[in-house]
Amino acid sequence: MGLGLGFVMSKIGNLSTSDHTSVVSMNLFVALLCACIVIGHLLEENRWMNESITALAIGLGTGVIILLTTGGKSSHLLVFSEDLFFIYLLPPIIFNAGFQVKKKQFFRNFMTIMLFGAVGTLISFGIISFGAIHFFDKMDVGSLDIGDYLAIGAIFSATDSVCTLQVLNQDETPLLYSLVFGEGVVNDATSVVLFNAIQSFDLSHINSAIALQFVGNFLYLFIASTLLGVLAGLLSAYIIKKLYFGRHSTDREVALMILMAYFSYMLSELFYLSAILTVFFCGIVMSHYTWHNVTESSRVTTKHAFATLSFIAEIFIFLYVGMDALDIEKWRVVSSSPGESVGISSILLGLILLGRAAFVFPLSFLSNLTKKFPYEKIGIKQQVTIWWAGLMRGAVSMALAYNKFTRAGHTQLRGNAIMITSTISVVLFSTVVFGLMTKPLVRFLLPSPKGLPRMVSSEPSSPKSLSVPLLGNGQESETDLNNGQSVPRPTSLRMLFSTPSRTVHHYWRKFDDAFMRPVFGGRGFVPFVPGSPTEQSARGW
Amino acid sequence: MGLGLGFVMSKIGNLSTSDHTSVVSMNLFVALLCACIVIGHLLEENRWMNESITALAIGLGTGVIILLTTGGKSSHLLVFSEDLFFIYLLPPIIFNAGFQVKKKQFFRNFMTIMLFGAVGTLISFGIISFGAIHFFDKMDVGSLDIGDYLAIGAIFSATDSVCTLQVLNQDETPLLYSLVFGEGVVNDATSVVLFNAIQSFDLSHINSAIALQFVGNFLYLFIASTLLGVLAGLLSAYIIKKLYFGRHSTDREVALMILMAYFSYMLSELFYLSAILTVFFCGIVMSHYTWHNVTESSRVTTKHAFATLSFIAEIFIFLYVGMDALDIEKWRVVSSSPGESVGISSILLGLILLGRAAFVFPLSFLSNLTKKFPYEKIGIKQQVTIWWAGLMRGAVSMALAYNKFTRAGHTQLRGNAIMITSTISVVLFSTVVFGLMTKPLVRFLLPSPKGLPRMVSSEPSSPKSLSVPLLGNGQESETDLNNGQSVPRPTSLRMLFSTPSRTVHHYWRKFDDAFMRPVFGGRGFVPFVPGSPTEQSARGW
Repeated sequence: MGLGLGFVMSKIGNLSTSDHTSVVSMNLFVALLCACIVIGHLLEENRWMNESITALAIGLGTGVIILLTTGGKSSHLLVFSEDLFFIYLLPPIIFNAGFQVKKKQFFRNFMTIMLFGAVGTLISFGIISFGAIHFFDKMDVGSLDIGDYLAIGAIFSATDSVCTLQVLNQDETPLLYSLVFGEGVVNDATSVVLFNAIQSFDLSHINSAIALQFVGNFLYLFIASTLLGVLAGLLSAYIIKKLYFGRHSTDREVALMILMAYFSYMLSELFYLSAILTVFFCGIVMSHYTWHNVTESSRVTTKHAFATLSFIAEIFIFLYVGMDALDIEKWRVVSSSPGESVGISSILLGLILLGRAAFVFPLSFLSNLTKKFPYEKIGIKQQVTIWWAGLMRGAVSMALAYNKFTRAGHTQLRGNAIMITSTISVVLFSTVVFGLMTKPLVRFLLPSPKGLPRMVSSEPSSPKSLSVPLLGNGQESETDLNNGQSVPRPTSLRMLFSTPSRTVHHYWRKFDDAFMRPVFGGRGFVPFVPGSPTEQSARGW
Repeated sequence: MGLGLGFVMSKIGNLSTSDHTSVVSMNLFVALLCACIVIGHLLEENRWMNESITALAIGLGTGVIILLTTGGKSSHLLVFSEDLFFIYLLPPIIFNAGFQVKKKQFFRNFMTIMLFGAVGTLISFGIISFGAIHFFDKMDVGSLDIGDYLAIGAIFSATDSVCTLQVLNQDETPLLYSLVFGEGVVNDATSVVLFNAIQSFDLSHINSAIALQFVGNFLYLFIASTLLGVLAGLLSAYIIKKLYFGRHSTDREVALMILMAYFSYMLSELFYLSAILTVFFCGIVMSHYTWHNVTESSRVTTKHAFATLSFIAEIFIFLYVGMDALDIEKWRVVSSSPGESVGISSILLGLILLGRAAFVFPLSFLSNLTKKFPYEKIGIKQQVTIWWAGLMRGAVSMALAYNKFTRAGHTQLRGNAIMITSTISVVLFSTVVFGLMTKPLVRFLLPSPKGLPRMVSSEPSSPKSLSVPLLGNGQESETDLNNGQSVPRPTSLRMLFSTPSRTVHHYWRKFDDAFMRPVFGGRGFVPFVPGSPTEQSARGW
């Protein structure tokens, strides 16, 4: 930040009056953020709205006002910056996702989540790329080569499930929530990794060697990024456990956690890995080990501070996208052929719908084959919800599109301008229209949370159980689960899929108890630090 | 941020490999921040070191390493950015100062603090400016006009009491702590306001009208900034009290508090006021009203999150200053006359010592005249501590000097380069040498905290007293205070000074109880929200 990062910050404020407009912009933006929070809060009970749509609407409204007051000249006032997005806004969101995820649910459904997030995204990517090649070639879109088409596939495979997650309830539908949530994160990472792989490979002449290299690269990125995140999380746990920062100040613990998390993100960027995956797994490890090594005040603080940062970043993004959507420069280029622009956006929306359906239903079927109990299976209504949950396109798509089709936020080429405006249209349409329909749809499909079978949430998720390991809740033997329920005998196919996974859980748990938690700390393995929040908060006041 | 602020962020990371060095810099910086926290923690017990000096030393060491590895070319790797400082780093520090200040102590000593912070800084400013004119005119410093000399006075009046505050203990020496702390904040604001006033006025021909206008401007800035901060704080209290955000999420409350505080800062910048003062008073009002309107989790979170942000920003600044001190470009300009540079730095250090002594001792004497009880008076040992506490010069001086004597961090003019290098020398010398001597000096002057008279801290500062108002702890009548102590009758001079202040306290308290707290909330005026941290933190895990 500021240290040779090459960005020249504007002379602002108190000391230099040269750039008063920038102070005005910042004031406007902070005021709008406050307005989004207040209005979003007031609309909480409304069955159609949610915070994302509120922010998007406020952003659009402000964009219109700015456009009108400046007489249509303000095209440069709000330029979407993918760096701002990838360096400052995305890390807190993804880290918080990992930090707050219900690990038990996440790891129980790990295989399904990976299936949806990685394989599903690849299927979706393939269909959208293929569809784009098929349809756009016949239209006058400007010169797009094979790399551009594949990039389009990656751009529009990146889902944005924020809207859906605001509607689903982690306690009422834990299976669904963890699937949608986990898939969202893995999907983000997959599409960014895909996008980068496409950018860095020469795709004009594909042969099997290059394809193999591509797959190898993809797997390397996936595994290396995950490992880096896990290592960073373990390092933070070890340092905090050994040095016992709480003795002197709880602020140091919190600062170290924030900095280590950010460090893992930047380190991943440094090694050209997928920083999203890294910071996500860093969050998971931190919440499993590090979080238990800090004082009670630090626990409360980190939990809410990370959630708040993520919350602000999300609103910021939607406000930003809403305001940027009206950037007049790009629309001017395509205004000569509005029909074509609408056509391309519609085709893309159709491909998104199709591409997602093409993997959600088959993969759900596949996943259900591995499950023994009916309540573990993904029902048809849940499949529709999962399908719907991933139809929205958001800031990741925007950022990737800007990276591919513009140079520093500007474009003059007709083909590129069309792709940018189409992306904006798709993002706005899917977020607003699909987003508005999410709440009613979820209420229709999953009518009363009380009436639903509680699915996998039947285990006690009470805070009293002080030694629940990272994976599963002790399914070493089947008898553990059979408390009163009639259990169908597993078929051979089921055995094939489920046995290895269960064995891994079992050994992991043993390993966690015997080695990991004694070294890195964790629930039940660190002495309780009596500095209770109320006690601590009273000091110094 | 990014929205027409005119700064072009570097293409960074994952998506664009063009600027890999910036990722390296960021990694290095985050890693150094972590190192500072860990090493600072390990050196906690050491009687000489503190976190500021650790960060400064690490910064200097890294600067040397960078300089050596790049072969002396890295002058542009680390450019001090006053915008980064004033827009991102200073607000959390000052806001946290207001938020965590012991309000009772602060307002009890309000007059003394204002005397030291405002009048004292003006005296110091006058002496340093006058001394600079007197000495530098005879030396070959390049062309400096009257405005430059006055700016030098303002630059070197800005104290940096972070070191001292790390040594003093708020519970053991509350009077001293609140004086040093309060003076530090008011001093920062005063010197920035002074600096801005000097920048905006044509000082080549001063007459009484301009001088009067200058004083009027100064007072206007002071009062308007304070009012804006108070209003922003009250607005946040009112919104949160009325809307009851805790019902839905504690994160929204925290987000709104952070955003409103930052909004007050930016709004103050917008109106060309003193943003430091604004955000300081916003912090005070927020901790008196808003903080009591939020859930228990939000209280713990805000308290520690603000402290953590402030902590990181402080370390960041010292690291930054340490690394920037070795910027080779500036030193090259002055390397032809090293003796002169040393001479100027020495003169400035002497003027700082003198300028501070010239107000601490007389003003302490004046302040003591208004006090009735011996334990309320500032003893000679405490006066020496206060004098010493304000000798360090820090990031505010650096930022002001860069603003005055460089253009976007670079300078070629000889006179300007000399002033920049002198500022760096003074900051480094005063922070390291004076800073290292602070801990031993404080231990020598105030030997055992237990042996000391507990001064004003004898009242119960327990968290159980649930309705202590903003000013005083109920000194309506003198009998309230006379619990067992022999009270000397006030002399007429004492009466003259102390009676109005006490009356103001009395009426303020009545007003606070009757109107302010019922409207804006506050201790004892909002129902306790039962969402206890432990209960809340268990959910979602």
